[in-house]
Amino acid sequence: MRGLMQHWPLTVDRIIDHAADWDGDRPVIFRAADGDIARTDYAAIRARARRLSTALAGLGIRPGDRVATMAWNNAHHLECWFAVMGMGAVCHTLNPRLFAEQLRYIISHAEDRAILVDPCFQPLVAALTAAMDWRGAIILLGGDAQIDRAILPHALAVETLIAAASDDAAWGGFDEETACALCYTSGTTGHPKGVLYSHRSTVIHMLMTLQPDVFGLSIHDVAMPIVPMYHANAWGMPLSTAAVGCTLALPGAQLDGASLHELIEREGVTFSAAVPTIWQGLLHHLAQTGGTLTSLKRVIIGGAALPESIVRGLRDHGVESVQGWGMTETSPIGTHAKLTPMVAARPLDDQMPFRLKQGRPPFGIDLKIVDDAGQRLPHDGVVPGRLHVSGPTVASAYLSGAAGEILDDEGYFDTGDIATICPQGYMAIVDRAKDVIKSGGEWISSIEIENIASGHPKVALAAVIGVPHPRWDERPLLIAALHPGEAASPDEILSCLEGRIARWWMPDTVVFVEAMPLGATGKIDKKILRAQFPAYPLPERISEHGA
Amino acid sequence: MRGLMQHWPLTVDRIIDHAADWDGDRPVIFRAADGDIARTDYAAIRARARRLSTALAGLGIRPGDRVATMAWNNAHHLECWFAVMGMGAVCHTLNPRLFAEQLRYIISHAEDRAILVDPCFQPLVAALTAAMDWRGAIILLGGDAQIDRAILPHALAVETLIAAASDDAAWGGFDEETACALCYTSGTTGHPKGVLYSHRSTVIHMLMTLQPDVFGLSIHDVAMPIVPMYHANAWGMPLSTAAVGCTLALPGAQLDGASLHELIEREGVTFSAAVPTIWQGLLHHLAQTGGTLTSLKRVIIGGAALPESIVRGLRDHGVESVQGWGMTETSPIGTHAKLTPMVAARPLDDQMPFRLKQGRPPFGIDLKIVDDAGQRLPHDGVVPGRLHVSGPTVASAYLSGAAGEILDDEGYFDTGDIATICPQGYMAIVDRAKDVIKSGGEWISSIEIENIASGHPKVALAAVIGVPHPRWDERPLLIAALHPGEAASPDEILSCLEGRIARWWMPDTVVFVEAMPLGATGKIDKKILRAQFPAYPLPERISEHGA
Ligand SMILES: Nc1ncnc2c1ncn2[C@@H]1O[C@H](COP(=O)(O)O)[C@@H](O)[C@H]1O
Repeated sequence: MRGLMQHWPLTVDRIIDHAADWDGDRPVIFRAADGDIARTDYAAIRARARRLSTALAGLGIRPGDRVATMAWNNAHHLECWFAVMGMGAVCHTLNPRLFAEQLRYIISHAEDRAILVDPCFQPLVAALTAAMDWRGAIILLGGDAQIDRAILPHALAVETLIAAASDDAAWGGFDEETACALCYTSGTTGHPKGVLYSHRSTVIHMLMTLQPDVFGLSIHDVAMPIVPMYHANAWGMPLSTAAVGCTLALPGAQLDGASLHELIEREGVTFSAAVPTIWQGLLHHLAQTGGTLTSLKRVIIGGAALPESIVRGLRDHGVESVQGWGMTETSPIGTHAKLTPMVAARPLDDQMPFRLKQGRPPFGIDLKIVDDAGQRLPHDGVVPGRLHVSGPTVASAYLSGAAGEILDDEGYFDTGDIATICPQGYMAIVDRAKDVIKSGGEWISSIEIENIASGHPKVALAAVIGVPHPRWDERPLLIAALHPGEAASPDEILSCLEGRIARWWMPDTVVFVEAMPLGATGKIDKKILRAQFPAYPLPERISEHGA
Repeated sequence: MRGLMQHWPLTVDRIIDHAADWDGDRPVIFRAADGDIARTDYAAIRARARRLSTALAGLGIRPGDRVATMAWNNAHHLECWFAVMGMGAVCHTLNPRLFAEQLRYIISHAEDRAILVDPCFQPLVAALTAAMDWRGAIILLGGDAQIDRAILPHALAVETLIAAASDDAAWGGFDEETACALCYTSGTTGHPKGVLYSHRSTVIHMLMTLQPDVFGLSIHDVAMPIVPMYHANAWGMPLSTAAVGCTLALPGAQLDGASLHELIEREGVTFSAAVPTIWQGLLHHLAQTGGTLTSLKRVIIGGAALPESIVRGLRDHGVESVQGWGMTETSPIGTHAKLTPMVAARPLDDQMPFRLKQGRPPFGIDLKIVDDAGQRLPHDGVVPGRLHVSGPTVASAYLSGAAGEILDDEGYFDTGDIATICPQGYMAIVDRAKDVIKSGGEWISSIEIENIASGHPKVALAAVIGVPHPRWDERPLLIAALHPGEAASPDEILSCLEGRIARWWMPDTVVFVEAMPLGATGKIDKKILRAQFPAYPLPERISEHGA
């Protein structure tokens, strides 16, 4: 027996329509290309996005076509999203930090028909398209005068297109399973793989994030997604803010501590989301300038493990930080380390172990940890296993079947993360499967060591990798980048680990590097570190495994 | 091009599964039949619901079959919901306050195959089934000893069924469009009509309600739905609480001020939802006893217009009340009178007109007001029109096509309410279309007059109906029930309206009644009032329309 409710497909055009119709004059603020802070609103964004849709249709873009963007977090980028998704085309957000070769692969693989480009990325896009068989349109997110004709002779200006286009875009009206966005993720090996979000998954993800125990966005918030719009759609935040009509503040290209601090204080940002390194930068800036955070109340930190020093640092400024875990393949919300009433009742020090776990799944995310045979492992907080995840917002396959079948027998996706789940329901990432260090047949969690080491006052960034060892197969090597002007001995850094990890987990030594190699999403790139330190000579520190 | 996300149907069994798996020991508290406060948790509810499913299947219940409940808000009723919905059958919540004749009609029309009954309703169910061709099972929500064999010789005891049943219920795995719940609504004319919710609409509704600007439920809440589970599924609250793992407190049969107050204070209830009369009862109790509310922070009030006196009364106790508007046909969330930042910045007195409107639609609800020709009317806060609504949680038809086609050309449902929408996006119900009073060809809002009159300290309940008038066609008559022991003259009551409504809206007189006739969902039954006062002699109060 079927229910008798309305057929109302969950499509993204409805989000901006709702925002424009009911919260049309609510502000969207962004750091423009010239560094100034500019303002628009949801009604204007819809009006321009509709015209851009018509213009794209005029250029031959059809539903299902992939249209790429290479842009920072700003209102024009958001207009592209709605223009492309609204008409049933697929918005393919390119990560400008990828290697040119990867970008070319991705653009060809996705068969992008057009690229919408922030002015600052003209040289990059010119170089990319010159070296490939590019026949699509290149549309500059700006006026005609901003186009660098020397390198992009045929580029179009979005302002010219919008000015000439009619408002009668054909939006929505398609099945909610229609693809709306495409984001590539770089795995350990092989080419980047495309995650193809549907309108349905995107709208459900948005609804899941709104709840108080996830983002908890209200119309009274001023929300600033620092996480780039090309990184899992800025965790969906620009859609969540439109859905509730809250103020959206987009930081553009300037993600340094000083610029973020200025934007936060000037616009009264209450809520934000970014990877840990961003918060390290902001806290460093505040420490140096004596700056304060007067409006910011809550931040979500994810993409990499959250070090205790950030939790405490932000707390000292009155900001509550919550760790989130997720992946491009999970839209990305997977878990949130919100405190349960039982944990919240404890003093801060006792809460810390839970705050530093990756968290609990909201409704809509099914999690399990399994052994190598795929059998479920207990939630005892001790036994680690491969983390598998399922839900309406989780990928079932990559574009064009790259990597083949990626779901297990129960339909769960294997995240490639190794995790424990404790009796209180908190999942903790022990390691990426590929980063796991196996000493004497037993696992050492690189993440746990990194978390503690990066709390050392002199350490800016820390990474632990396994290096081959004659007796133990592998032993951990700690690589550290110190804050500018600092100096330290290996033992000075290692001493902060003493008593906080098992003795046999202790890295055999510390190597100091000038700069840590960062990947395209701002995370430490351990592939490069492993290539750099394939066989580091280690002093013999341990003689036996044991506590 | 289709997205590549997982197929994960939105079904209700996943809600209780998520609660049991991740928040299994979070409390569900309820006032039991004997008046004591009893406790269970989500894990136990799932375990029992699964066994009950198996038992129902053993009794021949199949997916799609309708299974009725006649029960108060308690954990056993909730177990029935999950047992019935989990197996793909349809949970038909019966309203015990309907007339026996209506109940018999509804049970036959729905073709209920079984009734699950709170012990206190045995006489009612015995009387109902005795007078009809009832062949289904009658299952008592209690032990064998509680069955009154004299009147229900063949009844089964749920405790016996659960004890004997296996745990291997076949839950979920069906299409999300599958029906899960059925609720009848009594219209102006004709038989009650069945609204058939789907799993999809129910899960989407749950997600919509969680956001901060609607219910805003967090795991830290202790949430008490006072609105009955047979009234639009208690506004979905027992599902929302399970989804976030917060404490659920169910008040059972005792909805008087003293009992509610006891439960609130004893269990630390933070959030609740009910119709206005309930809050009037609670405030009255507090006033008489000098009681305080120490934990309650937020309440949603809907089902009838919210009088200012309740907003202020609750505020004096530190409770923020938010008006909600909705209908059985809208699952029921339609609008919420949450303050926008612009309104919130004003002093309380200036906020009040907005707080007393029915509110703004969350994402997922499309609203419009239209004239008699179906043309959209402006959002100027002045011109009233018929309120039409659309969304994934809105009915598209009644069970068995009762009332025929109920959607307009754009697929919107005509609510039968007359409303305005102001530039700030607040919808205000002016009247039920059928309750509208037309004086000299112009509308008078009975609701607006009732709101003010019921704020008079002596007035317990107030209703305004139109009575025939030789010159003006209709004129408003105010009917009032005073608080026990109070006495007043018509002019004393009318004086509180002076200056607050247009002069020609002034009711021509006041009639005092001992008790106000209340319908099955606790709202004033104007049908009965109109029958009682078909042609009341009115003094000539106005000579002309005008301000
Ligand atoms: N809070 C976190 N703690 C540790 N690792 C994380 C966290 N969030 C994300 N990750 C890692 O980042 C991966 C996803 O990367 P991406 O798809 O680029 O967002 C996950 O599989 C994790 O290994």
